[in-house]
Amino acid sequence: MLLSGLVTLQSATNMNTTLKFTVLLLLALGFCQGLQHNYIEEEEAQPVAQASKYGTLWPLPQKVQISEVSFKLSSSSFRIVDAKESSAGQSCSLLQNAYRRYYEYMFGGAAAEEQNQGKGWRTDPSELTELQVWITSPDSECDSYPGLTSDESYELSVNQPFAVLKAPKVWGALHGLETFSQLMYEDEYGAKSINSTTISDFPRFAHRGILLDTSRHFLPIKVILANLETMAMNKFNVFHWHIVDDPSFPYLSRTFPQLSQQGAYHPYTHVYTPADVKMVIEFARLRGIRVVPEFDTPGHTQSWGKGQKDLLTPCYSGTKPSGTFGPVNPILNTTYDFMKQFFTEVSTVFPDAYVHLGGDEVDFTCWKSNPDIKKFMDQQGFGQDYSKLESFYIQKLLDIVTTTQKGYMIWQEVFDNGVKLKPDTVVHVWIGGGSNEEMSKVTEAGYTTILSAPWYLDYISYGQDWQKYYKVEPLSFNGTEAQKKLVIGGEACLWGEYVDATNLTPRLWPRASAVAERLWSAKEVTDVNDAFNRLSMHRCRMVERGIPAEPLFSSYCPREYKGI
Amino acid sequence: MLLSGLVTLQSATNMNTTLKFTVLLLLALGFCQGLQHNYIEEEEAQPVAQASKYGTLWPLPQKVQISEVSFKLSSSSFRIVDAKESSAGQSCSLLQNAYRRYYEYMFGGAAAEEQNQGKGWRTDPSELTELQVWITSPDSECDSYPGLTSDESYELSVNQPFAVLKAPKVWGALHGLETFSQLMYEDEYGAKSINSTTISDFPRFAHRGILLDTSRHFLPIKVILANLETMAMNKFNVFHWHIVDDPSFPYLSRTFPQLSQQGAYHPYTHVYTPADVKMVIEFARLRGIRVVPEFDTPGHTQSWGKGQKDLLTPCYSGTKPSGTFGPVNPILNTTYDFMKQFFTEVSTVFPDAYVHLGGDEVDFTCWKSNPDIKKFMDQQGFGQDYSKLESFYIQKLLDIVTTTQKGYMIWQEVFDNGVKLKPDTVVHVWIGGGSNEEMSKVTEAGYTTILSAPWYLDYISYGQDWQKYYKVEPLSFNGTEAQKKLVIGGEACLWGEYVDATNLTPRLWPRASAVAERLWSAKEVTDVNDAFNRLSMHRCRMVERGIPAEPLFSSYCPREYKGI
Repeated sequence: MLLSGLVTLQSATNMNTTLKFTVLLLLALGFCQGLQHNYIEEEEAQPVAQASKYGTLWPLPQKVQISEVSFKLSSSSFRIVDAKESSAGQSCSLLQNAYRRYYEYMFGGAAAEEQNQGKGWRTDPSELTELQVWITSPDSECDSYPGLTSDESYELSVNQPFAVLKAPKVWGALHGLETFSQLMYEDEYGAKSINSTTISDFPRFAHRGILLDTSRHFLPIKVILANLETMAMNKFNVFHWHIVDDPSFPYLSRTFPQLSQQGAYHPYTHVYTPADVKMVIEFARLRGIRVVPEFDTPGHTQSWGKGQKDLLTPCYSGTKPSGTFGPVNPILNTTYDFMKQFFTEVSTVFPDAYVHLGGDEVDFTCWKSNPDIKKFMDQQGFGQDYSKLESFYIQKLLDIVTTTQKGYMIWQEVFDNGVKLKPDTVVHVWIGGGSNEEMSKVTEAGYTTILSAPWYLDYISYGQDWQKYYKVEPLSFNGTEAQKKLVIGGEACLWGEYVDATNLTPRLWPRASAVAERLWSAKEVTDVNDAFNRLSMHRCRMVERGIPAEPLFSSYCPREYKGI
Repeated sequence: MLLSGLVTLQSATNMNTTLKFTVLLLLALGFCQGLQHNYIEEEEAQPVAQASKYGTLWPLPQKVQISEVSFKLSSSSFRIVDAKESSAGQSCSLLQNAYRRYYEYMFGGAAAEEQNQGKGWRTDPSELTELQVWITSPDSECDSYPGLTSDESYELSVNQPFAVLKAPKVWGALHGLETFSQLMYEDEYGAKSINSTTISDFPRFAHRGILLDTSRHFLPIKVILANLETMAMNKFNVFHWHIVDDPSFPYLSRTFPQLSQQGAYHPYTHVYTPADVKMVIEFARLRGIRVVPEFDTPGHTQSWGKGQKDLLTPCYSGTKPSGTFGPVNPILNTTYDFMKQFFTEVSTVFPDAYVHLGGDEVDFTCWKSNPDIKKFMDQQGFGQDYSKLESFYIQKLLDIVTTTQKGYMIWQEVFDNGVKLKPDTVVHVWIGGGSNEEMSKVTEAGYTTILSAPWYLDYISYGQDWQKYYKVEPLSFNGTEAQKKLVIGGEACLWGEYVDATNLTPRLWPRASAVAERLWSAKEVTDVNDAFNRLSMHRCRMVERGIPAEPLFSSYCPREYKGI
């Protein structure tokens, strides 16, 4: 789909036209002076609607210079090509695929029509006909998977005779293509234009994730792919796939097919087959996105117990088993045999260097009721401290996962309980109260960490809550420079209690876009008014690309969403 | 789409099967015993998942008797036909249209396939092959518009050799068809079944509305129609179309085309043409839904001022006009000439007997600043009481609208300010604090009233807020029986600040369904657990019919939403 109507950059050629653009823009931002028909006070003052000097760029690149000189772009002549010097050529299908995708975003359905007119006079001096993509490092990483240490930087120069996008690796090139497409706008007559621009860009944080939960509600593959697509539009680079949990186990394991056979909402219609998982991983890779699966234990495992006998702890009512089950049973050797086999499979199915092992919210009630567990506690000398039992389990699990050559991420409780962690462990801070103190502690202990506590997007409220997410400063905790370097990023979490295919996408976007800019752009990028203006238009761009991103406030998009 | 998997009624034939159904159902309701990954306490205890003895009926009919005897339904033989005695026959396209719609809901895409198999042995004694629809009153009202006093009652008898749906008017028949379709379920093998059932049904309240706001965000016609469709599934019967307001004026007036030309977000892409409006009204009529347009004055009219010179009050800054405008200018004769012409047009475009005239939230600041207004206040002896000026305006407007032969609805402020109202005026109570007191006052003064205060669905919060809407009892205010009779219903309002085509439908449904049952079913229907179970399955039915109704809680539908 196209970007027409989102006219945002000042043209040097006609100041009168610029004014008209601004009027159009103010209209598009749609602010009403009148009262609103409601009786809840708006918590935040409404931001001022005024075109940003950065146009519709989102997230804002690290360094941007936009001149007033503009060029036209024609769908019939414009090409995205490999630079001659590029280390990635025609054989790099990741890039070839991306060229087509961004051409489609930029010129959409209009292309074919215009081409039929076959104009021969193509040497308009103010036309930009080419974007050359130049991978500068000898290894483009075209056929690799993105990782925590991947170089995502790029430099973009839009000028005649052609624009150049330079990046050490394909990952930076993907981001640069998104940025290039965001620079394009339509003038008053619908002519596609781009201003002469110089951009130098790289992410502030290396880990910029979205957590989706496919256990509380199953998400059809189509929904996951659409959100990966949108993540790329926002320069997110980690899909944290909270794939199983208490309510259902949709992951079809080759080694233990009974897990989904018994534990999924439905064994055929509500599972992710190995082919599905592969498709998600490849679709993500082509967009520079890592897929980090989470298999949360020992709590959050009710659905595991249905297909794996004796995995969970039998709870007791008095002296007899009650028929219900608690967390994973940590005192049986069979538990660890199972975990060894299961995580060995996981390590081959998911190529990322990390797997998320969960470890949050372990309820001790069931363990406390079980006489065998009590006996084990005595034998081990754990006394009444069940967190020691939890740590005992996690420690063994971490050792198992280490043998599969994976690094691991864990929720903060595992660190809090004093489990011995590998130095490269990523501690995931999620508990709302005191997350600054937690960040201090975790980094003081020398662990890398990511922040989610302020970004639980499943919590909804009336009004522009994106501003709350936007105003978070992940490094505001007390700590040394060295500690702050250990914060590698954050994740926006959309837990699944209240979302499924019907409402997930508009609930996530553009609220997650606020997190995207916080994690990508420079620390100093904190102007909420400017963000409002850019984000309003970024959301219309997502809508034009077919994503039902919800509105920030009363407004309109030149082309509204076509679904229902 | 079909209803398979939503197996809910006990079959007499096989108790073991019944147990399996219940297990299936509990799974479908999707309750997890485990903890939820979050730190906000759930305000409400989660309802218990257990099949309702009323199956998936929503809203619950007044009297229902479901026996354990079940019949099969075959897409190749089942027909919905006019009863011989019916006063509406083949020429009643409203009913013929409804038969097709409900056949499609019940048998969906599967019909064609099965028909190709052409089975000749069709006299299975336990098969139900016909639903006869019998309009009992001499005037079926097939070609009329529904109204406040329309008879919506029906009686449904599902038994062999055929089912009979009796209703005095087509409006009751439409509701009965919806109910019939809700009685159908699929057994374990996917066979469509229905139990022998007797239902006698009528609405508790005559006015059951949904307010949509097409000014803050433009809603494409497609979105409006989809929501009318869903309203019918929930037995709502009034579409309160808050069509214009401060931000934009999408109503294309034949008499004053400049209003949308200047006041719409865009004069071509963001307007409702006369043909569009006609289509909405007819689409609604075919589903027994009234369309009550709201043209709110004298406040909420910023967008009107753009295309109608001198309509709004010029605000002053000191002794000079500031360039901004306030409410409609009540002191000019031209204002009333305009209103006369405008509402004459409205009265012909919209067939409903009522028009909503707004009258809420009038801000006096601008009036106070204007020297001409001050002079007028003095002349009229209004002193400093600007609510007298407001009443002066409204009184004249009501007189104008009365000459167009319309009744009117108004927001509560108009009543509060002591404006003289026609006896048949409907006072719309919306202010959150003290709505019970307001209901007492309004009805004590002898006016009919509808309630919206507890049903502002634009206010969102985490969790199952549908329960809050469900627990409202509209007649809980202090008053006599005669006063309570004046409460003709209520409306769920979805104001448009934060919703457009991207997110409106899942935000409205099934939250509005809670209001639907409160307004339709008997006062005693207040069991939240039972409601949860029926509503969970009703929402899956909406999903199967293509409506992205959001989930109530962790769960799944047999066939998930196919969009994104």
